[in-house]
Amino acid sequence: MIRVGVIGTGMIGQDHIRRMTTVLSGVRVTAVTDVDARVAAEVGGRIGAAVHATGAELIADPQVDAVVVCSWGPTHEEYVLASITAGKPVFCEKPLATTQEACLRIVEAEVAHGNRLVQVGYMRRYDFAYRQLKHALDSGQIGAPLLMHCAHRNASVPGHFQKEMSITDSAVHEIDMVRWMFGEEIAAVRVLVPRRNRHGGDLQDPLLLILEMAGGVLVDVEISVNIRYGYDIRGEIVGEDGTVALGVQNPIEVRREGRAGLPVPADWRERFLQAYDVEFQEWIHALAGGGQPLGPSSWDGYAAAVASDAGVEALRSGGRVPVVLAEQPKLYVAEVPA
Amino acid sequence: MIRVGVIGTGMIGQDHIRRMTTVLSGVRVTAVTDVDARVAAEVGGRIGAAVHATGAELIADPQVDAVVVCSWGPTHEEYVLASITAGKPVFCEKPLATTQEACLRIVEAEVAHGNRLVQVGYMRRYDFAYRQLKHALDSGQIGAPLLMHCAHRNASVPGHFQKEMSITDSAVHEIDMVRWMFGEEIAAVRVLVPRRNRHGGDLQDPLLLILEMAGGVLVDVEISVNIRYGYDIRGEIVGEDGTVALGVQNPIEVRREGRAGLPVPADWRERFLQAYDVEFQEWIHALAGGGQPLGPSSWDGYAAAVASDAGVEALRSGGRVPVVLAEQPKLYVAEVPA
Amino acid sequence: MIRVGVIGTGMIGQDHIRRMTTVLSGVRVTAVTDVDARVAAEVGGRIGAAVHATGAELIADPQVDAVVVCSWGPTHEEYVLASITAGKPVFCEKPLATTQEACLRIVEAEVAHGNRLVQVGYMRRYDFAYRQLKHALDSGQIGAPLLMHCAHRNASVPGHFQKEMSITDSAVHEIDMVRWMFGEEIAAVRVLVPRRNRHGGDLQDPLLLILEMAGGVLVDVEISVNIRYGYDIRGEIVGEDGTVALGVQNPIEVRREGRAGLPVPADWRERFLQAYDVEFQEWIHALAGGGQPLGPSSWDGYAAAVASDAGVEALRSGGRVPVVLAEQPKLYVAEVPA
Amino acid sequence: MIRVGVIGTGMIGQDHIRRMTTVLSGVRVTAVTDVDARVAAEVGGRIGAAVHATGAELIADPQVDAVVVCSWGPTHEEYVLASITAGKPVFCEKPLATTQEACLRIVEAEVAHGNRLVQVGYMRRYDFAYRQLKHALDSGQIGAPLLMHCAHRNASVPGHFQKEMSITDSAVHEIDMVRWMFGEEIAAVRVLVPRRNRHGGDLQDPLLLILEMAGGVLVDVEISVNIRYGYDIRGEIVGEDGTVALGVQNPIEVRREGRAGLPVPADWRERFLQAYDVEFQEWIHALAGGGQPLGPSSWDGYAAAVASDAGVEALRSGGRVPVVLAEQPKLYVAEVPA
Repeated sequence: MIRVGVIGTGMIGQDHIRRMTTVLSGVRVTAVTDVDARVAAEVGGRIGAAVHATGAELIADPQVDAVVVCSWGPTHEEYVLASITAGKPVFCEKPLATTQEACLRIVEAEVAHGNRLVQVGYMRRYDFAYRQLKHALDSGQIGAPLLMHCAHRNASVPGHFQKEMSITDSAVHEIDMVRWMFGEEIAAVRVLVPRRNRHGGDLQDPLLLILEMAGGVLVDVEISVNIRYGYDIRGEIVGEDGTVALGVQNPIEVRREGRAGLPVPADWRERFLQAYDVEFQEWIHALAGGGQPLGPSSWDGYAAAVASDAGVEALRSGGRVPVVLAEQPKLYVAEVPA
Repeated sequence: MIRVGVIGTGMIGQDHIRRMTTVLSGVRVTAVTDVDARVAAEVGGRIGAAVHATGAELIADPQVDAVVVCSWGPTHEEYVLASITAGKPVFCEKPLATTQEACLRIVEAEVAHGNRLVQVGYMRRYDFAYRQLKHALDSGQIGAPLLMHCAHRNASVPGHFQKEMSITDSAVHEIDMVRWMFGEEIAAVRVLVPRRNRHGGDLQDPLLLILEMAGGVLVDVEISVNIRYGYDIRGEIVGEDGTVALGVQNPIEVRREGRAGLPVPADWRERFLQAYDVEFQEWIHALAGGGQPLGPSSWDGYAAAVASDAGVEALRSGGRVPVVLAEQPKLYVAEVPA
Repeated sequence: MIRVGVIGTGMIGQDHIRRMTTVLSGVRVTAVTDVDARVAAEVGGRIGAAVHATGAELIADPQVDAVVVCSWGPTHEEYVLASITAGKPVFCEKPLATTQEACLRIVEAEVAHGNRLVQVGYMRRYDFAYRQLKHALDSGQIGAPLLMHCAHRNASVPGHFQKEMSITDSAVHEIDMVRWMFGEEIAAVRVLVPRRNRHGGDLQDPLLLILEMAGGVLVDVEISVNIRYGYDIRGEIVGEDGTVALGVQNPIEVRREGRAGLPVPADWRERFLQAYDVEFQEWIHALAGGGQPLGPSSWDGYAAAVASDAGVEALRSGGRVPVVLAEQPKLYVAEVPA
Repeated sequence: MIRVGVIGTGMIGQDHIRRMTTVLSGVRVTAVTDVDARVAAEVGGRIGAAVHATGAELIADPQVDAVVVCSWGPTHEEYVLASITAGKPVFCEKPLATTQEACLRIVEAEVAHGNRLVQVGYMRRYDFAYRQLKHALDSGQIGAPLLMHCAHRNASVPGHFQKEMSITDSAVHEIDMVRWMFGEEIAAVRVLVPRRNRHGGDLQDPLLLILEMAGGVLVDVEISVNIRYGYDIRGEIVGEDGTVALGVQNPIEVRREGRAGLPVPADWRERFLQAYDVEFQEWIHALAGGGQPLGPSSWDGYAAAVASDAGVEALRSGGRVPVVLAEQPKLYVAEVPA
């Protein structure tokens, strides 16, 4: 039974607590903390977990085997570094940290520690359909990949959504996904800018990202954050011998009033509900087996940050921006083979 | 934490043990038994559960809060009755018992006990797509139901499969599903017999069942147990204002060698993997909350047995066979409203 | 250039005149007649065709090489027999005649004439998708057929629609289609009756027909004539080695307001527009080549009438009604091989 | 009855002759010519058409009301100009001419003539699905367009296929289609180059074109000319209020050997068979009505040539190449409204 402490008991934190408390096997939430002490007390009280005044206290709690960080992005670096210092596994919701420099400091701390402790919350790698896509690619049945077409559509975004967040918050999922899918780094990023959607106000929405993979695969990604009809994620890989795409997944089809209607998920929670469950279950199983986490690493978090920064610069400049990474430490080499 | 004892550690029993041990929350397998003591010892040893010589011993074990029966069908009645006598909740894999008389004895024992202890393993009610189908029907968007078209196709069946099992083992899932879907009993059954599939040897395969619901809805069910291409389940309800059908669910689509190819599940385990997880999780949550099980009841098990027997008789006689049930005890009234 | 005379210039007649005048190659409409002389004069005037007072006059017109009969059903026998007597090819919209006895008189007249002159307007045999279905079946890729599931749904029917017309007008298309698809006669018919759709008033709607083919294939056909959402035709054949079904044909897919929407045809004209064109073009090409018509024969018209009558009797009696045909004359033997 | 003379009786010429001779209404092929006199004599003899030694002779033939040019591309300019000089309508297979300068000379000749005589063979505008796509866009149901995603995939290309032909022969169909779809000109072109498909030998295959429309819509087009699995054309428009895409069109679906298989067209002839018929039928109807052709004009041919040249330059330079057109003569203004 892995005993987990959760830092940050807002919407996502509470969802992960629900998951670990009522859905998954082999885990117990033993401690919580939040910047809003009242919320932390309420949540902790409900599940019988210790309530700590600070993240540092929670990390130090001997009843905490592993840490889950769901707090505000700017606090991630501090809690992840503290967990590494304490030698405790830490699952950090994306982003790993808000700057690539901070991400690199975490990578360096983990390398100094000597083995993997950090996992970053990129849940697409745990989605059944994406896994089938990767499985089909890796099986060789479509030959070597050449192109990938993606779309990432949100029905709408909150009022505080900033222009750059189409890249740093939305496209970053595709950035992580293609690194995992093709097992190689992104070499350069471009951002093309079409007409602006009036529903997006001042946002530059939609965007068309072009990601060049190190091996020459070209990925185009539509990012739309005001598509209105629902949440929609597409992916199709073009290989030398054929193609493979995310398929159609409609639990039901209704025919009435002149048309056949297929439901569309309302948001990412609905679309990736099971992926989150699998993500946490596999993390818990890896820790329970005494091993290191196998999911997205701090290197992945760092590489995503660098590519995402390149995307933001490409959006500003209109040009092609290379993605320049630090040398990859040996600790992470197996994960993204050249 | 619900402590479960498992009677029967064959393929299905081991799968449920895996589920309760490594997937689900709030449950622990504390005891096992099997007609093959060596298998029971091996399985029990692996998970640190007590190994009992008999089902009776296991049911009596104070470390067992609830019983899961996965043994050979003819033993179900004995273990379920013993669990009721012990006042312990019992999850019994289908069939509830091998005759309708035995099922009725269980119903009567449970009624005498005074509240629900028994749940029968009809997992389709937990499948996301079937639930969406029922949700669409209940929402009224297609109006009152008139017809339902179903197909139940198995790639192949084991050598010991008997002629009647197309009804008692396969169609019984549709029998339970339509009772739940329409909230009413089956009034009569017919079985129509087409040309025989040469791959089925002596089996009468396929079959076309016609189920008449009490309220007049007519359900046709193709049962094919040698369809060869995979496991395939269909359902479409025709209502006064439209239709709703199980949809297309393809995680991926591959295009190569002259066609677009969509994967088909190999068997029921692949198709209903998540339904089994949900089925057990909801059962555990209901027990953990101190309540009665909410899933298919012993009345459902009994009613399915009677309808299934009618189907076997209809196959033999070629005629329309009414489904005649005992009077429904009040304990179960809410579940299948008239 | 085949010169055609059209008897009956109502809605269907005018549509076929449009087809022969502005769409198809190798044909000219040289004469028309109608029970309503004013309509005939108007239509004939528009295209420069002779306007005759009676069908007999039109058939006798030396400027008429071939006759198209689109008049009221009860007049079909007279015009078809007169065309045979005149030795002129005649395309007769379905039904060939309104009783099986009348159909048989036509068969006998044609046999006495010595070669085929009559073609009946069953257009499904010319639909691209049905042809692909038959092609897949005949190729052997799904093995010998065992079952077929069909649905025939009309959005609504006119006020004068009678109870029996669900069989004689709607299901008769499936009756002809399965004879052609499987190359054998229908042996018996049953009609099962579910709850009545309130939108159908006094009609018994929907119906579930069960057709037994001579070789043992069983066909179930849902007939719904008030489905409201559009016109929808389904067909799936279950064979020993796999299945083949009419596929999904959506020219476009719209995503808005929470769902993906697929258009459904409004009626049979929209669904079978091209089939009608192909039907007439192939008929014209066969005549132009100096040969006999190759489409549905008067035997097909007769056999459909007998099976349709059996369906009406089955609806009345609730039982299984055998389809008893006269001996098939040699003239037609090649068409529906045993 | 329009009397047509066909210049060029190779594969495409013979297919159009078949179409005008045995499929379409209101047209007769009265004259043919070809650079290979023997082929012309053979084809002409078969259909009873005059065989001319040269295109000039054919155009001058008083039995020729309208000209169809299917000869080798470099000869198009000469024949189209001669037809204009003769005041005869001319249907010219794409390209209108092999250089934009030649296209502009044709535009100027037609403007000098005073009304439209020329139609260019861009058949996608006649495809039912593309028309439905445009209809949905024009209806306003998805709001103003922002993006369009296209793919144009050929199974393979002949040995003589040159690098630039991926743009000038394949992508030129999308170039014409988007001008028609959005009713505005292309402002600039980029070409992005992924890893090369080994099946393409020296070709740069696939390519990713980016077309910027004058109004800001951005179009990405995958051009793959060695996709191997068949011919596949995709299009999806993203608007402010939703999306609309070319749909799934599978006449049948076969389930066998572990998967559901959907046929893919082998080539463009199969995919666009009906579009060609409609294209010619509408052209003939327009001429028969005494009017001007309504299809793609010489201005469309010229504009496609300029955009295609920009694409070739963009492929060479790697940069963004503006599309600079001559001023549009009033004769064509209605067709592509600003």
